[in-house]
Amino acid sequence: MIVHISFCLWECIGRRSGGGRVPVQSEGDRALVRVQDLTPEKADQLIWLRARIHTSRAKGKQCFLVLRQQQFNVQALVAVGDCASKQMVKFAANITKESIVDVEALVRKVEQKIESCSQQDVELHIERIFVISQAEPRLPLQLDDAVRPDGEGEEEGRATVNQDTKLDNRVIDLRTTTSQAIFRLQSGVCQLFRDTLTKKGFVEIQTPKIISAASEGGANVFTVSYFKTSAYLAQSPQLYKQMCICADFDKVFCVGPVFRAEDSNTHRHLTEFVGLDIELAFNYHYHEVIDSITDTMVQIFKGLRDNFQTEIQTVNKQFPSEPFKFLEPTLRLEYTEAVAMLREAGVEMGDEDDLSTPNEKLLGRLVKEKYDTDFYVLDKYPLAVRPFYTMPDPNNPKYSNSYDMFMRGEEILSGAQRIHNAQLLTERAIHHQIDLEKIKAYIDSFRYGAPPHGGGGIGLERVCMLYLGLHNVRQTSMFPRDPKRLTP
Amino acid sequence: MIVHISFCLWECIGRRSGGGRVPVQSEGDRALVRVQDLTPEKADQLIWLRARIHTSRAKGKQCFLVLRQQQFNVQALVAVGDCASKQMVKFAANITKESIVDVEALVRKVEQKIESCSQQDVELHIERIFVISQAEPRLPLQLDDAVRPDGEGEEEGRATVNQDTKLDNRVIDLRTTTSQAIFRLQSGVCQLFRDTLTKKGFVEIQTPKIISAASEGGANVFTVSYFKTSAYLAQSPQLYKQMCICADFDKVFCVGPVFRAEDSNTHRHLTEFVGLDIELAFNYHYHEVIDSITDTMVQIFKGLRDNFQTEIQTVNKQFPSEPFKFLEPTLRLEYTEAVAMLREAGVEMGDEDDLSTPNEKLLGRLVKEKYDTDFYVLDKYPLAVRPFYTMPDPNNPKYSNSYDMFMRGEEILSGAQRIHNAQLLTERAIHHQIDLEKIKAYIDSFRYGAPPHGGGGIGLERVCMLYLGLHNVRQTSMFPRDPKRLTP
Repeated sequence: MIVHISFCLWECIGRRSGGGRVPVQSEGDRALVRVQDLTPEKADQLIWLRARIHTSRAKGKQCFLVLRQQQFNVQALVAVGDCASKQMVKFAANITKESIVDVEALVRKVEQKIESCSQQDVELHIERIFVISQAEPRLPLQLDDAVRPDGEGEEEGRATVNQDTKLDNRVIDLRTTTSQAIFRLQSGVCQLFRDTLTKKGFVEIQTPKIISAASEGGANVFTVSYFKTSAYLAQSPQLYKQMCICADFDKVFCVGPVFRAEDSNTHRHLTEFVGLDIELAFNYHYHEVIDSITDTMVQIFKGLRDNFQTEIQTVNKQFPSEPFKFLEPTLRLEYTEAVAMLREAGVEMGDEDDLSTPNEKLLGRLVKEKYDTDFYVLDKYPLAVRPFYTMPDPNNPKYSNSYDMFMRGEEILSGAQRIHNAQLLTERAIHHQIDLEKIKAYIDSFRYGAPPHGGGGIGLERVCMLYLGLHNVRQTSMFPRDPKRLTP
Repeated sequence: MIVHISFCLWECIGRRSGGGRVPVQSEGDRALVRVQDLTPEKADQLIWLRARIHTSRAKGKQCFLVLRQQQFNVQALVAVGDCASKQMVKFAANITKESIVDVEALVRKVEQKIESCSQQDVELHIERIFVISQAEPRLPLQLDDAVRPDGEGEEEGRATVNQDTKLDNRVIDLRTTTSQAIFRLQSGVCQLFRDTLTKKGFVEIQTPKIISAASEGGANVFTVSYFKTSAYLAQSPQLYKQMCICADFDKVFCVGPVFRAEDSNTHRHLTEFVGLDIELAFNYHYHEVIDSITDTMVQIFKGLRDNFQTEIQTVNKQFPSEPFKFLEPTLRLEYTEAVAMLREAGVEMGDEDDLSTPNEKLLGRLVKEKYDTDFYVLDKYPLAVRPFYTMPDPNNPKYSNSYDMFMRGEEILSGAQRIHNAQLLTERAIHHQIDLEKIKAYIDSFRYGAPPHGGGGIGLERVCMLYLGLHNVRQTSMFPRDPKRLTP
């Protein structure tokens, strides 16, 4: 018996007989099996399964389906015979791709491995099939096209899907094995970040995103209408992390959105991204802060390597890349050493010039060649290229106690020892021609005793992109925002 | 020898000799002891400690200090004698309250317990003292006043601090034992929420806060200037959570800011708060969703009860309240039962009327009396009072498959089974006179197969407030935002 119940799903779903909107009360006794659990041990069992129709191919008196749950799929067959009528085969063949179905089926071991499915040793012989949710017949993109590596199948005229089409139809694109793997790994990065810091005694804080004054100078900030006045979106939790340190929380972290009204249309800029932020008081030297952050990154890299191999390999199938390499302890170079390495490679630059993006990438390659690591810290940036709240180097006023961290030659973290004295902070703000009135609350935070402290902000999407060796940060943002994209 | 090094802290801090800005390189061998570890086992040891001056009282040739680290404090003494000169005692007496100092001191067991300190069995005999960061002499509020219970000490003319003064000077107010306890507990709520859901197989997602269209109807939404156009701040991650369900993530959660441009100046409304959001596909009945959420709440309550007793008791000292009670399994009442209980208590209301805030509170008291629980679910709200995307009750079109959850009589979560069919969603949007063009992307998400699903959003600040029996949500928001407050 076949029943089509598409959209009349109410409180109870999965009915045995069709028509009308009267729900049948208890299907709760029907245990649903997961696709990944369909192994030869289940052979000859009659099971229930809920899954999407991944592909469908009718062939005479049979219809071959591939049923999918996230990254797992299994072959299924509806064939005219004892259990299925001709009409049922026809009905099954007409169910649109991406529809969600409930099937009752016999698990059968197969002689020859089914190479195209994740469950290679069994197939399902369907006895009943219900449509739980029907997809429209015309999909905006095909999942198989969306996971095809660039260039592959070009000769056969097989399509790939360009990035804008993927992002315009993100709900479909996120169903691909590649996207499922990327965002499961991203969830893992957040968890590893927090778990590592919690173990180190850090406290999680929640900082406001609507702020009254632009904390970092006023450029590149989004304005919000706030009742009868206006406000800004926080470019970072910087001020609030520091206030928490002044408020005796000692070591804090936060995970949340940060906003940059920068009209940059590059592979690595977003107008909204997720910041993994750290701030901590230190005892004697700001390298205690660097060590705490690099150790956290190393714990993340190890956790990904040890617990997310399936996801890494799934992404690699579509986007091949070298495994991510890191050292223990983390390599720390001084800015002057980096400038020397670049000059040796033919780059012309002054001692206090900032690194351009191409020079950062080149430096990444030089460091990889020399030290065999994809992760390192560049310490002691020239004071002139850092924000006003950066602590100058006590030994050389041209430099500062600040650092960036790099993965595969791209910056993923910027940080520093912060000035914790209101008078010095005022001097530096004046030097940077910042309107003192606008940052009064910030400066006042340091008037009632503030411990020496430092920290940094990590871009979650960049960490995921660079760890996986991807080339566009939009691939690691579920619903990316850039100057030209506000939807979906 | 005494040294005052206040703000000349650079790369290395804690210098042996004062003056100038030449840093002494290695103090890193000086291990700092934590106040909470100062117990009789350390008696007669010479230790180093970094802490704030909590109080200071000079008395002849002696100066009594209380040194504080977060919620822990210890008595310390500088006395003229072998180790300290008259000048040193005078210097110590002049260090302003809230300044941060390094002291070298001998730990001494005391005969009589020091009731006013957390470390009651020892005191410190200071031999050297360094100022690490000096506080301005006039504090905007006194910590002892800020933790005084309402009414206590009124006869002696002792002050308490009103809420606006506390919030205006939040950096100082957050140093109190009460604030330290509240926000350490809040950090725990987030951790328990995520850990419980991760164990249940949920995936953490990051959803955009800048959105192109107001997802929930258009009222109470903040507008953002977005390059040459304008955008909105998300009132909830509702649409994006649901899109993730349509994108096969099956069970998702997120923790992040939500924004409400509501001009409500009450004890429980903020314009920006932290949402703990859940969304999941279910198999047969939306009560699977309710069960998953209530179990998560119960795990949070148990985790707080078992791991945060010190924090709970610290807050109770200033704000006494009854211990939070909950049942297992969680009590679930239907809306009609609640209306009957209220009517029996003399309230006049129609079957389909929404609950007013006073009636919610009254209901909370009635439920507590009858069932002895501070936490329960109210199920099957009238359809008319819920948003357009709420699934109607299949058995009675006046009601819906939606629910609120309450703690101590106040709502902390609103949730529902969502309509997962584009056609029904369109019908309900038209019924609510919503401009279809504006929610096109939302409706389109359900066109390519969507599983039945439901979820809810929890207000973090409310959960903390109500669990602790506090009376204002601003107490559980580090830097609260309301129509009248945008700073600090």
